[in-house]
Amino acid sequence: MFKANITITLRTSILDPQGKATGHALGELGYKAVQSVRIGKYVELEIDAPTHAEAALVAKSACQDLLANSVMEDYHVEIQELVAN
Amino acid sequence: MFKANITITLRTSILDPQGKATGHALGELGYKAVQSVRIGKYVELEIDAPTHAEAALVAKSACQDLLANSVMEDYHVEIQELVAN
Repeated sequence: MFKANITITLRTSILDPQGKATGHALGELGYKAVQSVRIGKYVELEIDAPTHAEAALVAKSACQDLLANSVMEDYHVEIQELVAN
Repeated sequence: MFKANITITLRTSILDPQGKATGHALGELGYKAVQSVRIGKYVELEIDAPTHAEAALVAKSACQDLLANSVMEDYHVEIQELVAN
């Protein structure tokens, strides 16, 4: 069993209003050190696959087919093996 | 300048309807290997701080004050240094 940790972010050329609003709110709270905020999605998948490579393949095609919008978003997949108890 | 990569996830005891719906949709698309899906938020902060430790402190208090709901969510912060061009 493998776990895929997927981060999905808006491409840098795309305006991120949610991040802008959060950055503004942090500024109001006194977080002057925070220069920019961008917000994306984080998806954890548990994948039943025989090998690390096959789990990565499943996770990447799930991103392409459903999880990410490839026109405006980038995704990054990290696979870790879950050790059975 | 540092970059904080923050993942915010629902605690495992909390039901994640968005993850359940996505898992169901992946099943319909034929992703039988995907056993479970949980969805969270991903936040990237650019923090102007003198040291790694101070950047981590800023990111963690931003999570506590605004980004995460500490009753139902857990957060994980990773700090990396941005090399100036």
